[in-house]
Amino acid sequence: MKTLESYAAGGWKAGEGGDTQLNAITGEAVAKVSSKGVDFRAMLEHGRKVGGPALRKLTFHERAMRLKALGTYLSERKNAYYALSSATGASKVDSMIDVDGGFGTLFAYAGKGRRELPNATFVIDGATEVMSKTGSFVGQHILTPLKGVAVHINAFNFPVWGMLEKLAVNLLAGVPAIVKPASQTAYLTEAVFRDMVESKIFPEGSFQLICGSVGDLFEHLTGQDVVTFTGSASTGQKLRSHPAIVRNSVRFTMEADSLNCSILGPDAVAGTPEFDLYVKEVVREMTTKCGQKCTAIRRAFVPRAQVPAVLDALKARLAKVVVGDPAQEGVTMGALASTGQRDEVRKAVTQLRGDAELVFGNPDDVKAVGADAVKGAFLSPILLHCAQPSESRVVHEVEAFGPVSTVMPYDSIEDVIHLAARGEGSLVGSIFTYDNAFARELVLGAASHHGRLLIVNRDCAKESTGHGSPMPVLIHGGPGRAGGGEEMGGVRGVYHYLQRTALQGSPETLTAITGQWIPGATRREGVHPFRKNLDELQLGDTIKAGPRTVTLEDIEHFAHFTGDTFYAHMDEEAAAKNPFFGGRVAHGYYILSIAAGLFVQPDPGPVLANYGLDNLRFVTPAKAGDQLSVTLTAKGKNPRITENYGEVRWDTVVTNQDGKVVATYDVLTMVEKGPKAA
Amino acid sequence: MKTLESYAAGGWKAGEGGDTQLNAITGEAVAKVSSKGVDFRAMLEHGRKVGGPALRKLTFHERAMRLKALGTYLSERKNAYYALSSATGASKVDSMIDVDGGFGTLFAYAGKGRRELPNATFVIDGATEVMSKTGSFVGQHILTPLKGVAVHINAFNFPVWGMLEKLAVNLLAGVPAIVKPASQTAYLTEAVFRDMVESKIFPEGSFQLICGSVGDLFEHLTGQDVVTFTGSASTGQKLRSHPAIVRNSVRFTMEADSLNCSILGPDAVAGTPEFDLYVKEVVREMTTKCGQKCTAIRRAFVPRAQVPAVLDALKARLAKVVVGDPAQEGVTMGALASTGQRDEVRKAVTQLRGDAELVFGNPDDVKAVGADAVKGAFLSPILLHCAQPSESRVVHEVEAFGPVSTVMPYDSIEDVIHLAARGEGSLVGSIFTYDNAFARELVLGAASHHGRLLIVNRDCAKESTGHGSPMPVLIHGGPGRAGGGEEMGGVRGVYHYLQRTALQGSPETLTAITGQWIPGATRREGVHPFRKNLDELQLGDTIKAGPRTVTLEDIEHFAHFTGDTFYAHMDEEAAAKNPFFGGRVAHGYYILSIAAGLFVQPDPGPVLANYGLDNLRFVTPAKAGDQLSVTLTAKGKNPRITENYGEVRWDTVVTNQDGKVVATYDVLTMVEKGPKAA
Repeated sequence: MKTLESYAAGGWKAGEGGDTQLNAITGEAVAKVSSKGVDFRAMLEHGRKVGGPALRKLTFHERAMRLKALGTYLSERKNAYYALSSATGASKVDSMIDVDGGFGTLFAYAGKGRRELPNATFVIDGATEVMSKTGSFVGQHILTPLKGVAVHINAFNFPVWGMLEKLAVNLLAGVPAIVKPASQTAYLTEAVFRDMVESKIFPEGSFQLICGSVGDLFEHLTGQDVVTFTGSASTGQKLRSHPAIVRNSVRFTMEADSLNCSILGPDAVAGTPEFDLYVKEVVREMTTKCGQKCTAIRRAFVPRAQVPAVLDALKARLAKVVVGDPAQEGVTMGALASTGQRDEVRKAVTQLRGDAELVFGNPDDVKAVGADAVKGAFLSPILLHCAQPSESRVVHEVEAFGPVSTVMPYDSIEDVIHLAARGEGSLVGSIFTYDNAFARELVLGAASHHGRLLIVNRDCAKESTGHGSPMPVLIHGGPGRAGGGEEMGGVRGVYHYLQRTALQGSPETLTAITGQWIPGATRREGVHPFRKNLDELQLGDTIKAGPRTVTLEDIEHFAHFTGDTFYAHMDEEAAAKNPFFGGRVAHGYYILSIAAGLFVQPDPGPVLANYGLDNLRFVTPAKAGDQLSVTLTAKGKNPRITENYGEVRWDTVVTNQDGKVVATYDVLTMVEKGPKAA
Repeated sequence: MKTLESYAAGGWKAGEGGDTQLNAITGEAVAKVSSKGVDFRAMLEHGRKVGGPALRKLTFHERAMRLKALGTYLSERKNAYYALSSATGASKVDSMIDVDGGFGTLFAYAGKGRRELPNATFVIDGATEVMSKTGSFVGQHILTPLKGVAVHINAFNFPVWGMLEKLAVNLLAGVPAIVKPASQTAYLTEAVFRDMVESKIFPEGSFQLICGSVGDLFEHLTGQDVVTFTGSASTGQKLRSHPAIVRNSVRFTMEADSLNCSILGPDAVAGTPEFDLYVKEVVREMTTKCGQKCTAIRRAFVPRAQVPAVLDALKARLAKVVVGDPAQEGVTMGALASTGQRDEVRKAVTQLRGDAELVFGNPDDVKAVGADAVKGAFLSPILLHCAQPSESRVVHEVEAFGPVSTVMPYDSIEDVIHLAARGEGSLVGSIFTYDNAFARELVLGAASHHGRLLIVNRDCAKESTGHGSPMPVLIHGGPGRAGGGEEMGGVRGVYHYLQRTALQGSPETLTAITGQWIPGATRREGVHPFRKNLDELQLGDTIKAGPRTVTLEDIEHFAHFTGDTFYAHMDEEAAAKNPFFGGRVAHGYYILSIAAGLFVQPDPGPVLANYGLDNLRFVTPAKAGDQLSVTLTAKGKNPRITENYGEVRWDTVVTNQDGKVVATYDVLTMVEKGPKAA
């Protein structure tokens, strides 16, 4: 038997004494877990003083690259994790979800971080707000990393994914973490964590581990720390009301088990693909991880007329489930995480049976292939049927955290929206229908109570990621009973570890602070800025060019050359009736094209390409006789880590002879880093 | 003396008994306040059943128009509010900040709502996430209004603004509210509220009022409700830990008084404009609203060498403050809100004096012009000086919520960042400097502890909105001690009342639900979609056009016509060396222009103008011989309320003969609503 260690303040430390955790399949002792003797205050200080500063020195892109490296490093070692995973009761598929799913989150955030965050240490959030008449005083939000520690309290059911789905996000944000896995399955978390430390991919202090209880850790939390909790609602509520959390307004994200529902559409009668998909998904959700998922389907809502057919189909499918040691050939469902958990589930089933009848399975008896069904934490899948769900409280409130679901009828779309809401807030709901009008009404009616809604039909089923799988690019969390939190969701999750600050000042000052040129700040003319490489180029470097006079001949020529003979360009009389133009006008694309002709520097140089354009708005029409000038100002630079160039964004304004703005847009270019002969 | 009434479930109701609130200037009785007998549960139900559904039927733009109408309606009645405001101790300027500031928030949200939110009942949040190889399964976040009630617990210091800065946001979101003003100054809130009800601008149930205590209201909160609290940290913490809040994960925004600082830069020595601006601002923050602002400057950090000069200048300026009845000529500072508040401030000053010396004012004695200084809640401005701020705990923790500030020295930028953070989280900090490098380092070091940072110098001072003024377009709130909340911040505040839900399904299904065409959904060809008006046009309506063959002649012609002779278009050898092109390529603007030539419908019709273009990316270069085609698909419609047209966004893809994507962008057009002869 192994004695697990905590990784605290840069060293491994075994706790004194401790509880013994058992193999869920065999009942044999696996590991001893205790954090007694660990200095939790020192751990927080280590994160704040060592890990935080080291992480904050890196840019989002540098952290993203490390996430990718970490995912690759751990993937190479995954066989060892699979071996330990089976002790938690997991089948091969369950282990994949946990282990590979965790690495997938690292890779997803590595990608998102480089695509959607700047190669910088903070984020510019939203548009500049002009807060004064002459524009001498403006506002700009930025997001900077909190200077505390993320404390992750994880559940027993996903020892790997549960750690990494949280850690990927705070590491990308630049905030260190302390991970506290549930003791039951901490031996798997600890094994992965050891490799993370040994990899030396992230700076020391970026993550620490507590195997055992958190002791007095919460006493030492400050307003710069963040707590994320996954687990039972009751524990979450207790932690959320901790005096230090309340006193210091510590950010607290809670993700609790909820009474998630899955709804069969009225169109999806027996014989339709959606009916079959529904039956398959309900059984899959009941049996994957033995139903120990906070996202599992607990309430299956079915049009009243379809209930008998659904029950029959579910029973037939459940009859094929083979419970036992997943190492044995043919076993499709393993064990719960512990016999203690099995007792909890049995208790909940008894409560549910007050309002629902048992239609499949026996909570007290199960055959376990290749294992001792009593020593191992085995349980039969259990299907219930509640005929009057609107009369029942218990089916909407009591969660059996195991292979248990309840089928219930509904009578109308309003009825099922109401029934779904009886869960008081869920992580996820799913809808099986090929009727998009039904889906629309149901989604817009039920969205307020759900963090995620999945609509499955024959067109997407093959590629669907399924009811129970949180995805890194989508938020994971839900209102009310589900805890009110939001995890992941792409960069949204990263923002959870950043402080949003509104800056106010002159455009010049805010340009200097944010590294983004703001209108009103100095424009510097001189050498053509396209002759400057990325290092030489300064925000505010400007080229003004023009004017070029628009002629009718030009307009006609452009029209015939491009084929764009829209009446507003060609027909004075018709154009005069147009509410925006009041006469013949030049093409918008003509304006863009000649503006480029004015500002371009033709010779080879550091500017490699114009790869795009953002936020183009035509403000004042250009007519024959107008004289157009263009002003291009370096607005932002984003050097790439892996290339010898980076993006430069140019604030572009086309004006006419009266100084009126004709068009505004951002020109996007790739510019070389190193020097280059002109 | 008036007896205030609550507006509950559609009717006005006076509470039984109640406390008497006094005029802050004269000490005379103004109003009796009690909510005894009000059915709080019925109020919540009224909001949920009557107000919520009525508000949710309106679009964001319709709600925004009502906010504007409400602002106009109340502005016309503002003289009556000013009269009541003076009873709260407010000077004319104080009343303007409260009354006109409140209306300003309504107008700001009316503008933001129409500019930055769709004319729809929900928001599409972020980009579509492709979650599968073939694109048959995608994700999209949406934001829908919560189905509960916003409960606003307001502070005594801003009886009008405090109500409206919160209400503007939840009303725009489509969520009804219950407003509970502080009893001390509730008579002013009630007067404004009566006019709001009488205006009938918002549907019944959109807002209700509690004059007096909230009774058992909190017991009945659910996960769909939202509580926002402004006031003292201790009360906020108590409410935040209410069992119903914790149990139901009720969203709770807290905005608490904090130990805000203002920092003088080392460059801003006596004689510089920034020095004078600093002195002026510290005194302004001490005396406006008698210093009763959660954003007021409590800690003034000054380079050690500049302390004597700053103290002298502050004392000289404070000596000119005239305390008394604001109705009297020459009075520049009124009274605190109550004599009870004065007692609190005196107590806090005594605590502060443990670590700081009194350098101006007498907490126990003040001359009040035109008023009885004992009966009225008058207090002298009080300036303290703490010579060793890093040794003191009290100056960073104890807030005297009145005309009180403490000047403290700092020795280095690290030192002042550390001292600022000793406040454990603030709503706002300000920096007076003309050194942008200093400002940058200080801002990036201090941002994690501040919700807002203002940098003042000679360039922006004239238009600066000042240290103490929260602005509707910027977030108001701060981490840690400041409560950890975020109010306003433009549409960010609106999102606080919306539930984010991740949708997953086929592109066709998500298009039907969101009203935004998603790639992969059906494209419908037929009548040229530019011949369809806004009502006829369906999402997915498509025009495919082309191909047109790119020729070297075309490229050369375009180059000479526009003047854009960039080498990549003109010189095969030089272009071959470019890492992106590998040979001569067509101009990006040429591609856009001929694409328009391909898809345009030349005759007058419902499409009025191409007003812009978003998210253009050139993906594959186009070379001579390439055959380009374009596909334009109606992606989103946004009818305007006040015009006979609306925006239509077209998904646009230019492809070459191999089906490779050459360019992608959104074309933005204005399209008429009504029918129009072709």
